[in-house]
Amino acid sequence: MNKPYQWLEARFNRLSQLAHFNHLANWDQATQMPSGGAAARGEAMAELSLIRHELLTATEVAEQLAMASGEALTAIQQANLRAMQRQYDLSVAVPGKLVRAKTQAAMAAENAWRQLRPANNWTEYAPILKNMVDLVREEADARVDYASKQNANITAGKAARYDQLIDLYEPGCSSAFIAPIFARLKQTLPALINQVSVRQASQPLMPLPTPLHAEKQFQLARGVSQKLGFDFERGRMDLSHHPFCGGVPDDIRITSRFDPNDLFDGLMSTIHETGHALYEAGLPKSLRGQPVGEAQSTGLHESQSLLFEMQLARTPEFVSFLQPQVEQNFGSHSAFASDNLYRHITRVSAGHIRVAADELTYPMHIILRYEIEQALMLEQIEVADIPALWDEKMQQYLGVATLGNDKDGCMQDVHWAAGEFGYFPTYTLGALYAAQLTASLRKTQPDFGAAIAQGDFGSIKHWLSQHVWQHGGRYTTEQIITMATGEPLNPDFFVNHLKRRYLDE
Amino acid sequence: MNKPYQWLEARFNRLSQLAHFNHLANWDQATQMPSGGAAARGEAMAELSLIRHELLTATEVAEQLAMASGEALTAIQQANLRAMQRQYDLSVAVPGKLVRAKTQAAMAAENAWRQLRPANNWTEYAPILKNMVDLVREEADARVDYASKQNANITAGKAARYDQLIDLYEPGCSSAFIAPIFARLKQTLPALINQVSVRQASQPLMPLPTPLHAEKQFQLARGVSQKLGFDFERGRMDLSHHPFCGGVPDDIRITSRFDPNDLFDGLMSTIHETGHALYEAGLPKSLRGQPVGEAQSTGLHESQSLLFEMQLARTPEFVSFLQPQVEQNFGSHSAFASDNLYRHITRVSAGHIRVAADELTYPMHIILRYEIEQALMLEQIEVADIPALWDEKMQQYLGVATLGNDKDGCMQDVHWAAGEFGYFPTYTLGALYAAQLTASLRKTQPDFGAAIAQGDFGSIKHWLSQHVWQHGGRYTTEQIITMATGEPLNPDFFVNHLKRRYLDE
Repeated sequence: MNKPYQWLEARFNRLSQLAHFNHLANWDQATQMPSGGAAARGEAMAELSLIRHELLTATEVAEQLAMASGEALTAIQQANLRAMQRQYDLSVAVPGKLVRAKTQAAMAAENAWRQLRPANNWTEYAPILKNMVDLVREEADARVDYASKQNANITAGKAARYDQLIDLYEPGCSSAFIAPIFARLKQTLPALINQVSVRQASQPLMPLPTPLHAEKQFQLARGVSQKLGFDFERGRMDLSHHPFCGGVPDDIRITSRFDPNDLFDGLMSTIHETGHALYEAGLPKSLRGQPVGEAQSTGLHESQSLLFEMQLARTPEFVSFLQPQVEQNFGSHSAFASDNLYRHITRVSAGHIRVAADELTYPMHIILRYEIEQALMLEQIEVADIPALWDEKMQQYLGVATLGNDKDGCMQDVHWAAGEFGYFPTYTLGALYAAQLTASLRKTQPDFGAAIAQGDFGSIKHWLSQHVWQHGGRYTTEQIITMATGEPLNPDFFVNHLKRRYLDE
Repeated sequence: MNKPYQWLEARFNRLSQLAHFNHLANWDQATQMPSGGAAARGEAMAELSLIRHELLTATEVAEQLAMASGEALTAIQQANLRAMQRQYDLSVAVPGKLVRAKTQAAMAAENAWRQLRPANNWTEYAPILKNMVDLVREEADARVDYASKQNANITAGKAARYDQLIDLYEPGCSSAFIAPIFARLKQTLPALINQVSVRQASQPLMPLPTPLHAEKQFQLARGVSQKLGFDFERGRMDLSHHPFCGGVPDDIRITSRFDPNDLFDGLMSTIHETGHALYEAGLPKSLRGQPVGEAQSTGLHESQSLLFEMQLARTPEFVSFLQPQVEQNFGSHSAFASDNLYRHITRVSAGHIRVAADELTYPMHIILRYEIEQALMLEQIEVADIPALWDEKMQQYLGVATLGNDKDGCMQDVHWAAGEFGYFPTYTLGALYAAQLTASLRKTQPDFGAAIAQGDFGSIKHWLSQHVWQHGGRYTTEQIITMATGEPLNPDFFVNHLKRRYLDE
C-alpha cells in the first residue's frame, strides 16, 4: 500500500503523461492537421480532457490530499503538494460536462477562426464567440462559487468572475493587483509614445529590400534560435498562423511565420518562442511529471520570451551579432547597415496588430483587451458591442481605426475564441518582469553587451537558469522575482528601460 | 442506468478516442519527432497503453459483456458485441505490466533501428531484438494460456504460441490454414520466377533517366493518390523511412519516400498506402468509434492496398493514364515510352528488399519471414541464428546472399523490433485476396481497363465499397471474400493472375 504522497505522485505522473498527448495534438492541429480532421480531433480532445478531469477530481484524490498533508514531507514535496492541491481545486470547481463543452467549442471555434478571420467575417464569428463567452461566464461562476466556499475573503457573485480567470494563468494575481500597474502605464505610455514618435520621425530609416525569401528567413531564424540555445535534437521549428511554443520537455516545438516583406516579424517571433522554449527546457528534470516541476505562471513564462525578444535581441549588440548573417542570407545592401537594422527593430509605430507591436505600444493593446474582457465577464458589455468598443479604444489609445476591419481588429487573436479570458494581462506582466530581471542580470554581468555581440548567451542563460528556470513551480512568481531582483514587481524598471532605450535618458 | 450494451458502446467509444492519440503519436514519431523526444514519447505511449488496457479489462466490462449477451440486439449490435468480446479477450489475456513493457521496448527498439539499420550494426541490434523476442514469447504464452481455458480445441504449450499471434492480425487464421497455401506458393513460384526471368531477359528494357527530383516525384505521387480518390481535405501525405498509412478517419495520413534513382519505388508505395487509406475512409461512418466499425483483418487491409498497387496500377491501362504525367514532370524521353514504363513496373527481379520486391518474388520474402518467426516462437532457433538462416533461405528461395549485409537482410524491417510477430503472413494473404477480388471485379466491369486508362476509378471504388469497405468488421474475412467472389480463399486466382500477366497464359 503506497503512502498518500506517493499515491499522489503516481496519479499526477499519469496526468502528465496524458497531457503529453494534449500538447502533441495542439501542435499538430496548428501545423499539420487537414481541415477535415477538426471534428474528430475535437471529439478526441474533449474526451481526453474529460478523462483527465475524472482522474484529477476523483474522490480518492481529495482523500489522499487530505491525508498527505499530515505526512512528513521535504520542502519540495510540500511545494508539490500545494501545487497538486491547486490543480485539484481548479479542476473540481468546474463540472466535467462544462469542461467537455468548452474544449469542444474551443476546437471548433479555433478552426472557424482560421477561415473567418482572413475573410473579415464578423457576422459568422460573433455567434461563435458569444457561445464561448457564455461558456466562460458559466465556468467563472462555478469557480467563484467554489472559491468563495474555500476562502472567506472571496465574495460570491459576478464581480469576482474575472479574478478567478486571471488566477488560472497568474496564480495569486487579481485585477486589484493589475489595476494600479495598468493605470500607471496608461498614464505614462501615450505621452512616451508621442515623444518617441517625434524623435524617430527625424531619424532616417532606409526601407529594407524586399522580397526576402520566406524559406531563407526561416533558415536564418532557425540558426539564431539554435545559437540562443534551442536544441534541435530535442525540439523542432515549424510554420503556423500564430507563433507558439508547444510540445513537451525533450521535444519542444516552436513555430513562427515569415513574411517576405518583413525581415523582423518572423525572426523576432522565433526569438520570442525560443525564450519560452529555453524556460521549458530549463525546468528541473528531477521534477518532471509533477506539478511542482512546471513553470510557475504564464506571466513568468512570458517574461522569459520577452527577455530574449525585447531585452536581449533589440540591442545594438545583438544587431552586431545578427548583421553578418543577414548579409549572408540576403546579400549586401546599404539598408542592412547595423544602425539602420537597429532603427528598424526599435521603431515605434502605433499599428493594428498586437503580435506585430513594438514594446512601447504593446501594453496599450493589452490594456484594451484587459478592459474589454473584464467588462465582458462583468456583463457590462456583450459580444455585439466589441467591434465598436475596440475601434473606440484603439482610436483613443493608439490613434488607430478598426471599424469594418475586424480581421485586424477584434478578430486578430484566437485567445477568446479558444476560451482564454484572463490571459492577456500576463503579456504585459511578463514585459515588466523581463525588464526587472534584466536590470538585475546586467548588474551581475559586466560584459553583458559584449557577450551578446559575440553570440555568446551562456552566462545569461546560466543566470536565468539559477534565478528562474530551475525553480520550476517551487516558489510563487512574487517570491521568484523578489529573490532574483531584491524586490517585488516594480513597473519603474520597465518605464526606465523604455526611456533609456528610446529617449537615451 | 444504461443498459449493458449501451454502457459498452460508451466504453468502447472512449477507447476509440484514446486510440486517436495513439495513431497521431505513431505518425508523429515516424515523420516529425526529434530523436531526443523518444524517451518521453515512449513513456507517454506506455502509460496510454496501460490506461486503455485498464479501461478495456476492467471487471465491469466482463460483467456488462455477459449481461449484454442476453439483450435483444440487432444483427449489427450482435456483431459489435462479438468484436467487443474479442477485444476484451485479447486484452485481458496479457497482464498490463507486460503490455507496458512491450510498448516501451517497441518505442526504444524502433528508434534504435532507425540508427542501427543504416549502420548495418547487428551487434547492437541483436540484444534489442532478443529482448523483444523474449517479451513476445511471454505474451504468446499468456495468450495460449488464456485461450486454452476458453476453448477446448486449443492445447496449452509452446506449440500454440504462433497461432495466437497470427490470430491477432488475421482473426480465425492459423498456421494450419497458411501452411498448405504457402507450400503451394513455394512449389510454384521459384519455377515461375525462373521462367519469367528468362522471358524478360530477352525483352529490351531502357533505363530511365536519372536523377528524378524527389520533390517532383512527391508531387506526381500526390497527384496520382488524389486521382485515385485520396481526399487531402481529410488527410495528408508526408515522408518517412518506411511508408505507412496511419491517422484516423477524416484525417488519414499516408507516407512514402522518394529515391531520385527510382521513379517507381515511391510512386507505387504511395499507391499502396492510398489503397489502405481508401479502405479506412470507406469504413461505415455510422459505426465509427465501435469495434464493428473497424477493418476486419490485416490481410483484408493489405488486399486493398495491393489491389490498387498490383492489380490496378501495374497494368498497361494504368501506364496510359500515368505516362503523360511522367513527361509533364520530367520532360520527354524515349525511355518514358509506355511499353518501356510497363516493362519497368512488371520487371521481375530477385532482390534483397521486401518492400521493393515485385509481386512474384514478394511471397518468397514473406515465406522466409514466416518460417523464421515461427521457428523463433517455437524456440527452434534464437535471435543469434537469424543472420545465417536469413542468408541461407534467401540463397535458396531467391538466389540472393545477405551474410554481413544485415541492413539489407534481417534488419530491413522494423516489424520484429516493434513486437509484431504473426503479421508478415498477412502481406501474402492480402495479395491472394486482392487477386481473387479483382477477378470478380473484372467480371462485373466490362470497361475495367478503359476506365483505368481514363483515370476513372469511380466504379471500381463503388464495387469495393459495396463488397468490402462498407462491411467494416461485421463479417469475417472468409465471409467477405465468399460473398464478394462466390468462394473462400483460393490461391489459384493469384497464380493464374501471375501467369496471365507475366507469361501471357
